[in-house]
Amino acid sequence: MSKEQNTVYIGRKPAMNYVLAVITSFHSSDTKEVTLKARGQAITTAVDVAEITNRRFMKDLKVSGITLGTEEMPPREGENRSRMVSTIEIKLTRG
Amino acid sequence: MSKEQNTVYIGRKPAMNYVLAVITSFHSSDTKEVTLKARGQAITTAVDVAEITNRRFMKDLKVSGITLGTEEMPPREGENRSRMVSTIEIKLTRG
Repeated sequence: MSKEQNTVYIGRKPAMNYVLAVITSFHSSDTKEVTLKARGQAITTAVDVAEITNRRFMKDLKVSGITLGTEEMPPREGENRSRMVSTIEIKLTRG
Repeated sequence: MSKEQNTVYIGRKPAMNYVLAVITSFHSSDTKEVTLKARGQAITTAVDVAEITNRRFMKDLKVSGITLGTEEMPPREGENRSRMVSTIEIKLTRG
């Protein structure tokens, strides 16, 4: 199985959408590990998703690793400079 | 020295304000460790502060620990229910 199947990309939707994606990912494959990836403002949503999934739905989950990073993004319309955007990866493991 | 002196609370100001606070904290005391604390939307700013301080100003820093959590906040004006808010603590250590 490719590793990407166990990755949930966090965007601008409400946190509950991604919570459902994480639960589905754990239940549909026999994986012990799902990684959340987010950048910019979605970082807060990624933390919400980890906390909600863990506290409300899968109490046997734990956060087994968190990595911060920075990515260069192309300039916005009408701007000249590329932007630096922070990223986060949160690895959730089933105990 | 109290531990609180080595904690930088991240709020709604621009990230560079807190980057300066972190650098000052490392230089004014002889500490090897500063902790960033944030909740809600400020979580993204906290990650920005860790990344900018590390990449642009203090290349010998590393993220030595990240803890996620949830806090109960009092209800907003006109609402009945308390809200759950995600939190993050990012520990920065000088190598």
